[in-house]
Amino acid sequence: MHREQRQRTRDLLKSKGIERALFAHIESVIWLTGFAPVIELQSPFQAGPHLVWYESGTFTLITQDFQAPYAGNYADEPDGGLIVYEGYAIEHPIRSVADMAEQLIGLVRGSQGSGAVGVEVDSVSTRQFHALNLGLNHPDIIPVDNWLKPLRMIKTDEEIAKLRRAFALNDLAFAAAQQVVKPGVTEIEVWSAAHSAIQNADGIRSPLGNDCVVSYREFNIGGLPAKNVLREGDSIIVDLSARHQGYWSDGCRVFYAAEPTPEQIQRHRFIESALDYAISLIKPGVKAKDVDAAVRAFVQSGDYPGYPHHTGHSNGVGLHEEPRIVPYNDLTIEAGMVILLEPATYTFGQKRLPH
Amino acid sequence: MHREQRQRTRDLLKSKGIERALFAHIESVIWLTGFAPVIELQSPFQAGPHLVWYESGTFTLITQDFQAPYAGNYADEPDGGLIVYEGYAIEHPIRSVADMAEQLIGLVRGSQGSGAVGVEVDSVSTRQFHALNLGLNHPDIIPVDNWLKPLRMIKTDEEIAKLRRAFALNDLAFAAAQQVVKPGVTEIEVWSAAHSAIQNADGIRSPLGNDCVVSYREFNIGGLPAKNVLREGDSIIVDLSARHQGYWSDGCRVFYAAEPTPEQIQRHRFIESALDYAISLIKPGVKAKDVDAAVRAFVQSGDYPGYPHHTGHSNGVGLHEEPRIVPYNDLTIEAGMVILLEPATYTFGQKRLPH
Repeated sequence: MHREQRQRTRDLLKSKGIERALFAHIESVIWLTGFAPVIELQSPFQAGPHLVWYESGTFTLITQDFQAPYAGNYADEPDGGLIVYEGYAIEHPIRSVADMAEQLIGLVRGSQGSGAVGVEVDSVSTRQFHALNLGLNHPDIIPVDNWLKPLRMIKTDEEIAKLRRAFALNDLAFAAAQQVVKPGVTEIEVWSAAHSAIQNADGIRSPLGNDCVVSYREFNIGGLPAKNVLREGDSIIVDLSARHQGYWSDGCRVFYAAEPTPEQIQRHRFIESALDYAISLIKPGVKAKDVDAAVRAFVQSGDYPGYPHHTGHSNGVGLHEEPRIVPYNDLTIEAGMVILLEPATYTFGQKRLPH
Repeated sequence: MHREQRQRTRDLLKSKGIERALFAHIESVIWLTGFAPVIELQSPFQAGPHLVWYESGTFTLITQDFQAPYAGNYADEPDGGLIVYEGYAIEHPIRSVADMAEQLIGLVRGSQGSGAVGVEVDSVSTRQFHALNLGLNHPDIIPVDNWLKPLRMIKTDEEIAKLRRAFALNDLAFAAAQQVVKPGVTEIEVWSAAHSAIQNADGIRSPLGNDCVVSYREFNIGGLPAKNVLREGDSIIVDLSARHQGYWSDGCRVFYAAEPTPEQIQRHRFIESALDYAISLIKPGVKAKDVDAAVRAFVQSGDYPGYPHHTGHSNGVGLHEEPRIVPYNDLTIEAGMVILLEPATYTFGQKRLPH
């Protein structure tokens, strides 16, 4: 599982002369190992972020016993490995932090590598960093945050399969949402219908992103579902990200509480044409910012207000990955990338709710 | 909001001679401020844990712009304050980590306090710790992890109100679950019904703990719902924790796919009597471990297998708080504590799935 990801990482670290590294960002950990931990509520016994320790070409996952089953057979991978610390106990006070630190110190103490150690310092806890320092007797540190992000842009076949499943779950959720949309229903009821469809189909508890917003809300570009009631004539934005085996989809639909008006239909069709246009622009060799500019110009040509957010982005172990299709981005589109496009027009809210 | 919590914290820190401290555990942050951030999926633009900086008697919350609305009017509290860093942007690459660090450095640089700085080192990210060190020119550090936990044991009226609402949501969820339990239904469908009931009633996206396990599963003491189908004669454990404004409930019900057999009824009633017995033991002055021993003895007297987990625990901003009703715990029960009790008997799984 995820061997190609580890090979890319080995190649990068070798090219930088780094023999040892500690990864702690949840996206890095999932991407390197295929481990897909429960994330929608953290165990009260978890001792900081899940970790991956790289040394001598192997990547050892360190996690809490409760989460170990979600690592599948990663312990048996030729370049993998699994270290588990104790979370819950009733025989003695919870000592997960102490056990995690002992395991980490024991692991790195046997280190054969030399030179500076790469660390995702934005993510690793200070306790974990302290354990690393104790085990290695205060080595030089090189921050490696964001180093894996460019490596993640080209998706492997294994990742495409996970993403396709995540997108299929989103489609089920859109169908379930559409079925309940009618006057008198609340945003949160639409959301729950979508959420249930995903959980029931995937057979597992799962978190769900992003928005579910009725058209009359002041800030209707992003936003969490609430008890706002749909009325005759309203539309509702349903923007969802399902998570399957650690991989996120992302998609958006607009539904209508009743029969859409001719104006609603016209506008909906216009944005569909903007989406078709945006898709037509995505080719190897094109710059992200040029796609962004062209799609914004297309929407503005339609006598509708535009959109204050990105034109698109990629997804994977992160909800929002490179390439970002945004005004500043010089990045060039390549074959093997997965890109989501979301041209839009909004009547009310032009204020961006970032998340 | 949560002024009593901050007063207790001030008193503790003063008694320890600590004038400045950085809190980073999510439970500490919520307890100190009443801030109830979205947790079921972390924003990809969040720069490490939410933080609370204590200095000169005030507690300043530092969080991402997207989460700021969940802080309510905390910025206006006489001993509160709010600093927000930028998460999402399209005008430039995401720079949330850099902005967070700048804000933190700017905040602590003006520090008037002296002496060692308390830090929740198990939780604070290494980047955040580094920013603190830069801003204060490498002060002495005292780890203060777990210091707030004893202060959290006596619940305030405000907390009791939040907990009551969280428990009321759990009750709605149990009713919804019971309504769908019948032969042919899967665990995850029961779960989704419970989850939807909570979200729809509270009008907000929310995570849900804990277990939903049909009786024939090998390890039926803890476990995530899956596609296992209920059959005639099966029972199902539905163990839920709803979250309301950052506070968790916790409760458990057992439902039956069809009419329960006389043996199932007898056993259910026995455990109800064990629960009544356990409740009768909870009084100020009693030791947690004595309650634990007595309740275990009661269950074992009934010719049923016992339970391999705690007899009970408290809840609050954490899913599992002191007092823990477990064999080793010398802690004395006091008025104002909230205690959940969960005597049980299991036929199949005696293996504990900790979480």
